[in-house]
Amino acid sequence: MNKEYYVNTLQVGEELTDFFMVKSPSIKVGANHKTYFDITLCDKTGEINGKKWDVDEVEGQNLSKLKDGDLVKIKASVSEWNGIKQLRVARIRKADASADSLEMADYIKAAPEDPGVMFDFLWDKAQDISDEGLRKVCTDALEENKEKLSYYPGAMRNHHAEYAGLLYHMKRMLDMGIRACEVYTNLDRDWVICGVIMHDMEKLNEIDSNELGISSGYTVKGNLLGHIVLGTIRMEERAKKAGLSEEKTVMLQHMILAHHYEPEFGSPVRPMFPEAELLHYLDMLDAKMFDFEAALEGVDGGHFSERIRTLDNRMIYKPTFK
Amino acid sequence: MNKEYYVNTLQVGEELTDFFMVKSPSIKVGANHKTYFDITLCDKTGEINGKKWDVDEVEGQNLSKLKDGDLVKIKASVSEWNGIKQLRVARIRKADASADSLEMADYIKAAPEDPGVMFDFLWDKAQDISDEGLRKVCTDALEENKEKLSYYPGAMRNHHAEYAGLLYHMKRMLDMGIRACEVYTNLDRDWVICGVIMHDMEKLNEIDSNELGISSGYTVKGNLLGHIVLGTIRMEERAKKAGLSEEKTVMLQHMILAHHYEPEFGSPVRPMFPEAELLHYLDMLDAKMFDFEAALEGVDGGHFSERIRTLDNRMIYKPTFK
Amino acid sequence: MNKEYYVNTLQVGEELTDFFMVKSPSIKVGANHKTYFDITLCDKTGEINGKKWDVDEVEGQNLSKLKDGDLVKIKASVSEWNGIKQLRVARIRKADASADSLEMADYIKAAPEDPGVMFDFLWDKAQDISDEGLRKVCTDALEENKEKLSYYPGAMRNHHAEYAGLLYHMKRMLDMGIRACEVYTNLDRDWVICGVIMHDMEKLNEIDSNELGISSGYTVKGNLLGHIVLGTIRMEERAKKAGLSEEKTVMLQHMILAHHYEPEFGSPVRPMFPEAELLHYLDMLDAKMFDFEAALEGVDGGHFSERIRTLDNRMIYKPTFK
Amino acid sequence: MNKEYYVNTLQVGEELTDFFMVKSPSIKVGANHKTYFDITLCDKTGEINGKKWDVDEVEGQNLSKLKDGDLVKIKASVSEWNGIKQLRVARIRKADASADSLEMADYIKAAPEDPGVMFDFLWDKAQDISDEGLRKVCTDALEENKEKLSYYPGAMRNHHAEYAGLLYHMKRMLDMGIRACEVYTNLDRDWVICGVIMHDMEKLNEIDSNELGISSGYTVKGNLLGHIVLGTIRMEERAKKAGLSEEKTVMLQHMILAHHYEPEFGSPVRPMFPEAELLHYLDMLDAKMFDFEAALEGVDGGHFSERIRTLDNRMIYKPTFK
Amino acid sequence: MNKEYYVNTLQVGEELTDFFMVKSPSIKVGANHKTYFDITLCDKTGEINGKKWDVDEVEGQNLSKLKDGDLVKIKASVSEWNGIKQLRVARIRKADASADSLEMADYIKAAPEDPGVMFDFLWDKAQDISDEGLRKVCTDALEENKEKLSYYPGAMRNHHAEYAGLLYHMKRMLDMGIRACEVYTNLDRDWVICGVIMHDMEKLNEIDSNELGISSGYTVKGNLLGHIVLGTIRMEERAKKAGLSEEKTVMLQHMILAHHYEPEFGSPVRPMFPEAELLHYLDMLDAKMFDFEAALEGVDGGHFSERIRTLDNRMIYKPTFK
Amino acid sequence: MNKEYYVNTLQVGEELTDFFMVKSPSIKVGANHKTYFDITLCDKTGEINGKKWDVDEVEGQNLSKLKDGDLVKIKASVSEWNGIKQLRVARIRKADASADSLEMADYIKAAPEDPGVMFDFLWDKAQDISDEGLRKVCTDALEENKEKLSYYPGAMRNHHAEYAGLLYHMKRMLDMGIRACEVYTNLDRDWVICGVIMHDMEKLNEIDSNELGISSGYTVKGNLLGHIVLGTIRMEERAKKAGLSEEKTVMLQHMILAHHYEPEFGSPVRPMFPEAELLHYLDMLDAKMFDFEAALEGVDGGHFSERIRTLDNRMIYKPTFK
Repeated sequence: MNKEYYVNTLQVGEELTDFFMVKSPSIKVGANHKTYFDITLCDKTGEINGKKWDVDEVEGQNLSKLKDGDLVKIKASVSEWNGIKQLRVARIRKADASADSLEMADYIKAAPEDPGVMFDFLWDKAQDISDEGLRKVCTDALEENKEKLSYYPGAMRNHHAEYAGLLYHMKRMLDMGIRACEVYTNLDRDWVICGVIMHDMEKLNEIDSNELGISSGYTVKGNLLGHIVLGTIRMEERAKKAGLSEEKTVMLQHMILAHHYEPEFGSPVRPMFPEAELLHYLDMLDAKMFDFEAALEGVDGGHFSERIRTLDNRMIYKPTFK
Repeated sequence: MNKEYYVNTLQVGEELTDFFMVKSPSIKVGANHKTYFDITLCDKTGEINGKKWDVDEVEGQNLSKLKDGDLVKIKASVSEWNGIKQLRVARIRKADASADSLEMADYIKAAPEDPGVMFDFLWDKAQDISDEGLRKVCTDALEENKEKLSYYPGAMRNHHAEYAGLLYHMKRMLDMGIRACEVYTNLDRDWVICGVIMHDMEKLNEIDSNELGISSGYTVKGNLLGHIVLGTIRMEERAKKAGLSEEKTVMLQHMILAHHYEPEFGSPVRPMFPEAELLHYLDMLDAKMFDFEAALEGVDGGHFSERIRTLDNRMIYKPTFK
Repeated sequence: MNKEYYVNTLQVGEELTDFFMVKSPSIKVGANHKTYFDITLCDKTGEINGKKWDVDEVEGQNLSKLKDGDLVKIKASVSEWNGIKQLRVARIRKADASADSLEMADYIKAAPEDPGVMFDFLWDKAQDISDEGLRKVCTDALEENKEKLSYYPGAMRNHHAEYAGLLYHMKRMLDMGIRACEVYTNLDRDWVICGVIMHDMEKLNEIDSNELGISSGYTVKGNLLGHIVLGTIRMEERAKKAGLSEEKTVMLQHMILAHHYEPEFGSPVRPMFPEAELLHYLDMLDAKMFDFEAALEGVDGGHFSERIRTLDNRMIYKPTFK
Repeated sequence: MNKEYYVNTLQVGEELTDFFMVKSPSIKVGANHKTYFDITLCDKTGEINGKKWDVDEVEGQNLSKLKDGDLVKIKASVSEWNGIKQLRVARIRKADASADSLEMADYIKAAPEDPGVMFDFLWDKAQDISDEGLRKVCTDALEENKEKLSYYPGAMRNHHAEYAGLLYHMKRMLDMGIRACEVYTNLDRDWVICGVIMHDMEKLNEIDSNELGISSGYTVKGNLLGHIVLGTIRMEERAKKAGLSEEKTVMLQHMILAHHYEPEFGSPVRPMFPEAELLHYLDMLDAKMFDFEAALEGVDGGHFSERIRTLDNRMIYKPTFK
Repeated sequence: MNKEYYVNTLQVGEELTDFFMVKSPSIKVGANHKTYFDITLCDKTGEINGKKWDVDEVEGQNLSKLKDGDLVKIKASVSEWNGIKQLRVARIRKADASADSLEMADYIKAAPEDPGVMFDFLWDKAQDISDEGLRKVCTDALEENKEKLSYYPGAMRNHHAEYAGLLYHMKRMLDMGIRACEVYTNLDRDWVICGVIMHDMEKLNEIDSNELGISSGYTVKGNLLGHIVLGTIRMEERAKKAGLSEEKTVMLQHMILAHHYEPEFGSPVRPMFPEAELLHYLDMLDAKMFDFEAALEGVDGGHFSERIRTLDNRMIYKPTFK
Repeated sequence: MNKEYYVNTLQVGEELTDFFMVKSPSIKVGANHKTYFDITLCDKTGEINGKKWDVDEVEGQNLSKLKDGDLVKIKASVSEWNGIKQLRVARIRKADASADSLEMADYIKAAPEDPGVMFDFLWDKAQDISDEGLRKVCTDALEENKEKLSYYPGAMRNHHAEYAGLLYHMKRMLDMGIRACEVYTNLDRDWVICGVIMHDMEKLNEIDSNELGISSGYTVKGNLLGHIVLGTIRMEERAKKAGLSEEKTVMLQHMILAHHYEPEFGSPVRPMFPEAELLHYLDMLDAKMFDFEAALEGVDGGHFSERIRTLDNRMIYKPTFK
């Protein structure tokens, strides 16, 4: 069944019946001693808070079975509280993706390209690496993580926090990195490809994510060490398996370690060879381009977006002529 | 005549007779009350200090006619003072590029591509702009500055401080910018091209340079306002002439104003639309790639360069396998 | 009619009937599905939120015609919500300044001196400038902007965000600047006067303000370039018209450009001659004196004000003996 | 006898016989095993290094009696070493100010106003304070320190490091502070006068200075506590003696403590009432005006000064029309 | 009577009758025009907001007599508002510690060691100082402040903000400081002991605290000068009384002044002798150990605490095996 | 043979014959075209530059065989150049430690405790660890590195740059760490011991050092990764061998990774459990105590040391009474 109402276009006063995905459902007791149901309702365009008031015991037991990622059908109206829209839910039931003929893609924010196609792009470029050791490091890592890459987000929040967002980030960086080698001909293409593919691979172990690409937080080792150092540690074993020399191993570890450039963003060293430097700029540029595009969604020509925290609190401008 | 000895390969103890370019010549009186001649001798590979001791009055009058950019023929030997090489000059005479059949290119550090070819590249891309106003802004500015661009350095020191260095900087940024539009398809190619061509144009009025691309300092308005603000001011008149709307004028001024990104590097605002953001990264990347390449000149495999001030004091590594 | 109740002296529990100015009126739907009217009520002493509950359709249509800057008569009582006072509005009607014999000055925060008198002060000092070009720059700019200066605020918020606040800021800075020339006799009075008059002139194009001196935000070019750079650009044309030499033009542009001193506050260069340096300190001192005075309004002797954001989060002390 | 040659106008090659003041005299042994005499020669315009070569034992014993602040007559010629001028001394003898009819004022850098006149200015203003306690604090402190104030420098180096420099600093700040009270009429003139007079008084115990206003360094307590905290401690006793209330005592201590404003410049708290805030700006402005004037000494019109460390490394511009 | 319900273990939905301590009681009028009673209820484990709705005039008059630090008996139920627990109070009456047989220790957060024992520890170590003057400074100060030390908190909030918290801080620092002298044998034990005992003594005059160790804010001189400078001023008189030399006086003042190390944390100078340096680290370490212990209270094994503001926003980890 | 002259007590003019250790020997050609020998001469108290002038070809060939760490016997006199002492060498010959009966300990700066005794201290404490895995990690690492630890410096320069300096650093930190566990009883002693022993172990692979504890620089992997990350990587394998759980492995890696605390000093994460926090403070305190002691060597009572770069440029004070 086609979804009709999307979160980012709901109007105050509107009445609606439609499907949404569930986030953070919880039974609460109000100041008036009555039980109500508090829930966040999501689709690919965003999320909105909902309340179902006056929940009795039987209904409460049913509702308490709903969990993150479930789909529900609701009947509700759009109200406003302190300038923020809210859904006043009249009826709610658990839905079933297949029985209700729902497209999962309508309910989760996802990268705009197909995971399979993106993975193949990376795979082809990895095969293209002429240094045997570097090639093996990349193809081993891609093979090992093929499934997780197909859905992992690139972050818990901020840029690329979406289904297959990590893969999308890697793909566009690689696309750009290969072009950079055409302009800056002193760069070694092998190292650029390998650096891009490996630089964020341990995000797969830093972030906890379900198969919808929705992250519930960081792992313990994600918190205690971070993906940059996890990737540096892990490279020791990968490089050994691929038969890399100590120098090349250390250089790959350095690329991972230095790619955030600034100590306060997690890089204890700064790039010390050109391909490591490029890697940093590819990473930055891709994050920024993603954030600018996201910031301008829904902004009218001649106006500015809200202030965007990840863009140093800037407001982004959309010209009238676009 | 072919030059035989180059500054970057001189050995202590070597005796030589060859041509060099003059910088900062000056007659001085030593602690022993005798007159000597102090000079910096340059070629395309670098520069070295020279001293001619015991200069008598007649010779002194001749030497005092030498000025920056002259070519001289010297007979000298290489000594060392506090670990720094120096030329002990025995004989020196003014040379003449044509009479002595000298190639100017041997004596000045120059961009590795031909100025004419680089200019044509910019011109072609400017012609390619579909917005009539933006196109006229670019072609007018290129036409007006064609001659100065053919030799102007990109900086007084640091990256692109070389003959035609500014043009080389613009050319590589543009080459990269156009490729970025292929990956980030939301970008407007017209604005990227125009932004790259115009962003540093007022360096031509900020820096004083002779026709060899050697800068002797900043102009008064270079110091009081800087090329970023000069470019923003100048755009007012250029845009009016090209018939741009106020919005487009302000946007172009914003691109110039924001391209250094950080307030402490001269940008009072940060980029507020995607093409302005890209412009900053193209600028950074080109400067960094230039500096890395320069840093590694003459470094042996398996070793690090000196600490490079413009690269946040990093030492750059050259692998053994290159 | 004389206003009786002022915002800054309302007491919880008080019942009142009086006039106020309207800000941000809006019809909203509550969690209980009922319509209510949300409004900010202002006078020269401050502002307070008001709610009129249970608005029916007819009344809603009337209320929806109210707009920013209108005057209304209300009957209301003062309640408290989370420690913040609120007006519970029982009746509300649009008022008419002349029919109701209201003094606009009771309803808007305004500079404590008469705009006409302040303008004349600036005008006299401008006439006093001995350099013909500088004098013409000032008198032209004052003439051109005489009307807007009579009501423009000096800022959107913070210091001098009030009716004729910009003029008040210019007037007191100039008063102080002229005295500084008596103490620091190496200063050139012409440049001090001209710098003060011109330094913030483009706030008139950076900020959007109605004729009550109430700002609704920044203009597009205010956001993309800022008043400092707008003033620098605009000076190019003003100086040309006044026949200034290039040197003097660039110096005036420098004064405007440098007057915030710190790059992170919008000045890409720092002052490079004494009058430019003084201008910065006059600006700072006037802003600080304004903020201190405002901070201490309503503070009792022996106590501290709240923390003031614009004063680096300081609490300001009022001695017991004052 | 009138001095003819001044340090700031010596030319390389010049021969001269004239008087100078001695600084850091020392007998040294060169690499050639011979003894020479190393000395800094000063007058009110600056200082220059001098060497007397080949000093024999007898002369050495004489020279070793010279000490800081002595006057000498020398015969010497001006040479240059590494671009820095130096005096090659042929003859040197101790001079006697009265026998040689020398004006001490020619030999030391001094404030441009008479110490007695400046002191009287401060004294008059102190008498003018209407609060009895504050008045007594000021007059007591001025009386106690009258003699030291007549010659103490305002700093070891940087602004006001000159004979009677501290007094000059106090005098001009006070002159400006009183005028500020005319513009900012909410300020309490008593506190402004008292704050200015007392704010730097403990520099007299922080800095070691001889009676020529030449400082040889900081005292132990100057290093361990600094003049700001010394002044705050000392005020405890002064205030008690003047019968000030605890509140007024603490407020005066706060003014002293906060007058540098920034923690990293020695103020652990920031100003918390308007007079304390003004005091900071009076202090800054006076230091800056002093430094700008000093920076422009000897700079030609249309040129910039060297970079000035105390002015955030700025170059200062002197216009062509001055 | 034994307390049964503690704040940190209350469950939503629970009904309870128990004693709590009162904080910030206040009568308020709601949006519905009805009067309610707003109160914070505390015990040694934390605090929780409570509301008693629909308070009539008679009850209101009774409730308005409750003040900070009173004990009350309440009947209430636990509800939740925006994820924060709240007590809905049905009945409330003032209690009496002795009549109701209450242990004050149940109601206030207190240091885990007995104040008397801790004081004796400090006293013994002070008696142990071999330098007579330093010993007298310490014993005088301890004697003078014995009573206040027995209950004063170490801070208004953050580390050691609890009954006898200041004493606990001094005691553990001293315990550690004495051990440090065993390892770093160049340290002078006398100065370490004296520095620890005196460094925070003026917190007793910076902070306002009642005898339960609950602080209501800073004193006027606490705000205007801070405990570091207050301690430095006060030492002048203490040292004089103890017959210390000027050098030792200044050194003690320096230890107090420098103990926060960073200017932005209130130290205008940094430590300049080893015992002053150690004092800083003892202070830091004790604060950090306190905060880590507090952060981990109630955290389950294998989980992280919330982000802790005083620990640079870190989340603290509790291992599974503890 | 007993050494008589030590570097830190040489006087200008003194003639001496004694043994020194060689550093950076080099044959150079002067401005006068003559060959001379330039050398640094060291003993345990410091180092001094020496020159032997007029070296002929035969002698030059002999001298060119000297290398870092050789011992030489010289005849020389002490001169001074620009305020810096220098040895003018008349005769020089290679010495032989055994033939000349020299004590190596006279020639190298060394930790004040015996390496064997210090190692045993660490070994005993490691044996004391009750957690089997942690114990094995420590004892394995100590066994593996026993020899290198006996001479390795703790740094290239700065604190603990001396023979067995690393071991001395570990030993004193451990001594202090164990005492800290007595005061802060919530700390787990096992983790403190293990953290101290392992935190800097990879300095053995970051720094290049000969067996005299003299470092010639960083290794390639020292530069590209640093000892903190090297230690974190290496722990992966050590922990596996010792059978540690993943959690404990990650915690140990975190301790190493976080021990510099500040990102700009190389720690990409900050400590997240109490033992990791303590480790940082033990490290800081030991470095500071070392630097303070070194700074005060040779300073007279009542005076300050030079400014010490590693102590934030502080001058350190030595009291008169010590």
